[in-house]
Amino acid sequence: MYIGVDIGGTNIAVGLVDGGCNIIERVKAPTLPKRGARAVIDDVSRLCFELAGKAGVKPRDIERIGMVAPGSVDAPAGIIIFAGNIPFDNSPVAEWMRESWSCPIFVENDANAAALGEVYAGAAKGRSSVLMITLGTGVGGGIVLDGKVYSGFNGTAGEVGHMVVEAGGRGCTCGRAGCWEAYASATGLISMTREAMEKYPGGAMSRITGELGKVSGKTAFLAAREGDAAGRGVVDAYIRYLSIGLANLINIFQPEAVCIGGGVCNEGEYLMKPLIEATRREQFKGSPRLTEICAAALGNDAGIIGAAMLGARKDGLLK
Amino acid sequence: MYIGVDIGGTNIAVGLVDGGCNIIERVKAPTLPKRGARAVIDDVSRLCFELAGKAGVKPRDIERIGMVAPGSVDAPAGIIIFAGNIPFDNSPVAEWMRESWSCPIFVENDANAAALGEVYAGAAKGRSSVLMITLGTGVGGGIVLDGKVYSGFNGTAGEVGHMVVEAGGRGCTCGRAGCWEAYASATGLISMTREAMEKYPGGAMSRITGELGKVSGKTAFLAAREGDAAGRGVVDAYIRYLSIGLANLINIFQPEAVCIGGGVCNEGEYLMKPLIEATRREQFKGSPRLTEICAAALGNDAGIIGAAMLGARKDGLLK
Repeated sequence: MYIGVDIGGTNIAVGLVDGGCNIIERVKAPTLPKRGARAVIDDVSRLCFELAGKAGVKPRDIERIGMVAPGSVDAPAGIIIFAGNIPFDNSPVAEWMRESWSCPIFVENDANAAALGEVYAGAAKGRSSVLMITLGTGVGGGIVLDGKVYSGFNGTAGEVGHMVVEAGGRGCTCGRAGCWEAYASATGLISMTREAMEKYPGGAMSRITGELGKVSGKTAFLAAREGDAAGRGVVDAYIRYLSIGLANLINIFQPEAVCIGGGVCNEGEYLMKPLIEATRREQFKGSPRLTEICAAALGNDAGIIGAAMLGARKDGLLK
Repeated sequence: MYIGVDIGGTNIAVGLVDGGCNIIERVKAPTLPKRGARAVIDDVSRLCFELAGKAGVKPRDIERIGMVAPGSVDAPAGIIIFAGNIPFDNSPVAEWMRESWSCPIFVENDANAAALGEVYAGAAKGRSSVLMITLGTGVGGGIVLDGKVYSGFNGTAGEVGHMVVEAGGRGCTCGRAGCWEAYASATGLISMTREAMEKYPGGAMSRITGELGKVSGKTAFLAAREGDAAGRGVVDAYIRYLSIGLANLINIFQPEAVCIGGGVCNEGEYLMKPLIEATRREQFKGSPRLTEICAAALGNDAGIIGAAMLGARKDGLLK
């Protein structure tokens, strides 16, 4: 039995995971980041005991605990270097957990853990080299190579969203111009949708915005599905940028699989079919075998499962 | 004693490499690719015997032979899948070599081997994660992660030149538009130089072209060093594109080091200083430690040394 802990800016989600990578029990609590790093981790420890109790498992039967957070992690040292809105600042979180837990404790970036989750139990099951791309407010990247998380020499690799695909293009939160994230994130999609609505006022996208109460990542897709040309134009441009970045990453890594996650994947085949076609046209010709491009399967559970599977490779779970 | 074999489109270069990664003897012969794959490998085998004889080493004292070629390689199977102008076509080159050599035989892509060479004996000595970027006719990429060559699940990873950095930009030989290679290669630099010469005829670049007999990758740098504004403009644009792609790769991989090779590196600090400054401005902020950016040190020897070091990790040569 393993425990996976996904520490987000809003909630701490904790799951008990069995040897088949199933989440068999869960507990959850607000992160309340303002109380400080040590208080958050004390709560994580308490939640792990609560989880074991709820599942009727003795704490000494927990074989390991994996904790993941956004941001930068020194995995070998068990330290969270920083994590966006959560006040980790070179916090020795593994050491703090060891004060109350005797099992091995692992720490990793959440996007990397999500990639590992998809490798163990999701869309990339059994693959040894996988990129996981999460299209949300930003574009997150998780990298699994040779069955293990790859996070660079300083724990901050995988910033695939901050790959410029249009030099001098849209401004990005990172300070660069033309990052993939500025086009391929939900935020980028919403910006493109707004621009098209200004250019073609009074169309289907404006009507849908009135119905939904706001412009969202769904607006252009809903309009396009109705046959609206302006909506179709936004969707086509979005898919084009998405495919350019995907093809870049395939040309660089040639992984066995790329998993796409995030809310926009709810569009299903309407997104994935043209995206895969466009990426195949863009990617380098001559590879003897092609990278599989698929939608992620685990949703928010990927982080918990991946966290629980950190360090699992030594146990021979992966082929 | 190890042998490294670098099979290029024009020449086969073979070196005897000692445990300190020094090339202590060399032989060379034309590749003559038209005679076919098997004849080329038979010649490689013969050249290895010739090399051993020349160095006074018994063939049975050769501990391993590594062979590298451009293109796509199935390293575990010892097969060269294809190699540009050299007629390898799923050729079982390791098997062919084993008909006359009893030591372990390794096969790899030449850019990956060059990266490994720089890791063992060059600018990235002792680093465990290194990208090697070679700026030549194209932009080549070699990837070493965790002290080993990374070549993807199909042997064709590392096509970093075919990463679009300007969507809809300059056409590339690969069929895409706006690839890094179309700007950052010597070919891209020459194109930008020609365009500037057309825009500003009769300037320093035109005079230098007359003196050298052709436009080359040196033309704009020579003009810029003289203080010519048009030449400076080309150099600035070239360095800007180079830094955009480098920052992309650092954001993705966060390797310990990036080595830059190829003829343009002869510009020395005049290139490297502004390139490093521009890349630092572009790369993702917040990493606790920064990737070292350096010029490659081994030149054409990197391929031979890297070839000789394939499989060396098992011998504990790398930390």
